[in-house]
Amino acid sequence: MVGIGPGGPLDRTHRAEQAIAQSRVVVGYSAYLELVRDLTGGKEVIGSGMTHEVERCETALARAESGEAVALISSGDPGIYGMAGLAIELASARGVGVPIEIIPGVSSAGAAAARLGAPLMLDFATISLSDLLVPWETIRQRLEAVAAADLVVALYNPRSKRRVDPLTEAAAIFRCHRPGTTPVGIGTAVGREGEHVVLSDLDHLLEEEVDMGSVVLVGNRTSKCISGWFVTPRGYKV
Amino acid sequence: MVGIGPGGPLDRTHRAEQAIAQSRVVVGYSAYLELVRDLTGGKEVIGSGMTHEVERCETALARAESGEAVALISSGDPGIYGMAGLAIELASARGVGVPIEIIPGVSSAGAAAARLGAPLMLDFATISLSDLLVPWETIRQRLEAVAAADLVVALYNPRSKRRVDPLTEAAAIFRCHRPGTTPVGIGTAVGREGEHVVLSDLDHLLEEEVDMGSVVLVGNRTSKCISGWFVTPRGYKV
Repeated sequence: MVGIGPGGPLDRTHRAEQAIAQSRVVVGYSAYLELVRDLTGGKEVIGSGMTHEVERCETALARAESGEAVALISSGDPGIYGMAGLAIELASARGVGVPIEIIPGVSSAGAAAARLGAPLMLDFATISLSDLLVPWETIRQRLEAVAAADLVVALYNPRSKRRVDPLTEAAAIFRCHRPGTTPVGIGTAVGREGEHVVLSDLDHLLEEEVDMGSVVLVGNRTSKCISGWFVTPRGYKV
Repeated sequence: MVGIGPGGPLDRTHRAEQAIAQSRVVVGYSAYLELVRDLTGGKEVIGSGMTHEVERCETALARAESGEAVALISSGDPGIYGMAGLAIELASARGVGVPIEIIPGVSSAGAAAARLGAPLMLDFATISLSDLLVPWETIRQRLEAVAAADLVVALYNPRSKRRVDPLTEAAAIFRCHRPGTTPVGIGTAVGREGEHVVLSDLDHLLEEEVDMGSVVLVGNRTSKCISGWFVTPRGYKV
């Protein structure tokens, strides 16, 4: 279970590269396999499309069970909306007794935050707006709770072509608890080709380009813009 | 502003190492400078103790202003309870117009999670129990909110020799909303010498060794132990 960071070779760790180098079979979502193409020469590479997560894990486990060293690739951190948990669950459910190592990576939220400044300096929450696996009512309650508790929030899977309402509703919830001038940062394809980073605010969030490859960072009541950076002050006297 | 990950060379990214290689002056908390000693030969290295964060940033900014390439080191991710925000705030307050780049790293929570399994697979919050910079009442309200919203939680700065009560109070808050058998993972000095990782539960958390170098991961109502791993299932059918 290898996390390769947000995507570019520069954000990969040595541990991730070592694991790929030591593997014979590399499995992953096809778009992520492209990102490690410089490391997979001479190896068997097995790619599949989005929503084939269970199938990918099963392939990786089956190959590992036959004695091969397998690297299952996740972008960002495999433990944050990645496939680390699914791999463990499936190994147990299918009785596959292979050793598993989980290699953390720079998370998409951390990478987006770094490009924007320092929005996550204080307590924050990470919430996915995708209701494929979690009921929307649960997501909505979590948004209410963290908005009221004045946490900075990183929104994953904020908007797809089909799914526009969740971001609209999330923005309205935050707007009930924070001024419209609250800084909001959007990082799309961070560290990859086509990287696009925008600093906006709550009142203008819905006018910005946001897609499934974006992370949306919503500031809290103390967050501000300083010299073009998005910062949540930690409380030091400056 | 360079994040070096939780500490070991294997968890460093290429981008972090490149920035250190290109710098002439390396500034940081002395314990973290030890962790990059393999990269700082021939450079000027300026270390200082804990609680000297403002002084460290000022030194780094002053040296940068005099035209030198400076690497200011943070362990983990510099944007998560690190010094990225302080550096931006001080540069603005002191009118220092040097270019700043923030280099993200593997966060301590992400690294601890990977050793324990996959506790952060779903929505989670990150909360520091240190009341040095944030009033305890604010922290307490945030704990209440995220405990009630069934978020997995990563607790930073959970306990020091002087400060024992916050973790006791946090455990009691979670216990009001989750069963005592809820998995709790503790990662201490992850990726460093003396690494210590324990899987426990809410009822036994206070008996475990926890210090300022620990991250405590508290599961939500769906988290469970699977083959010795701590997993929060994301909701896939397995």
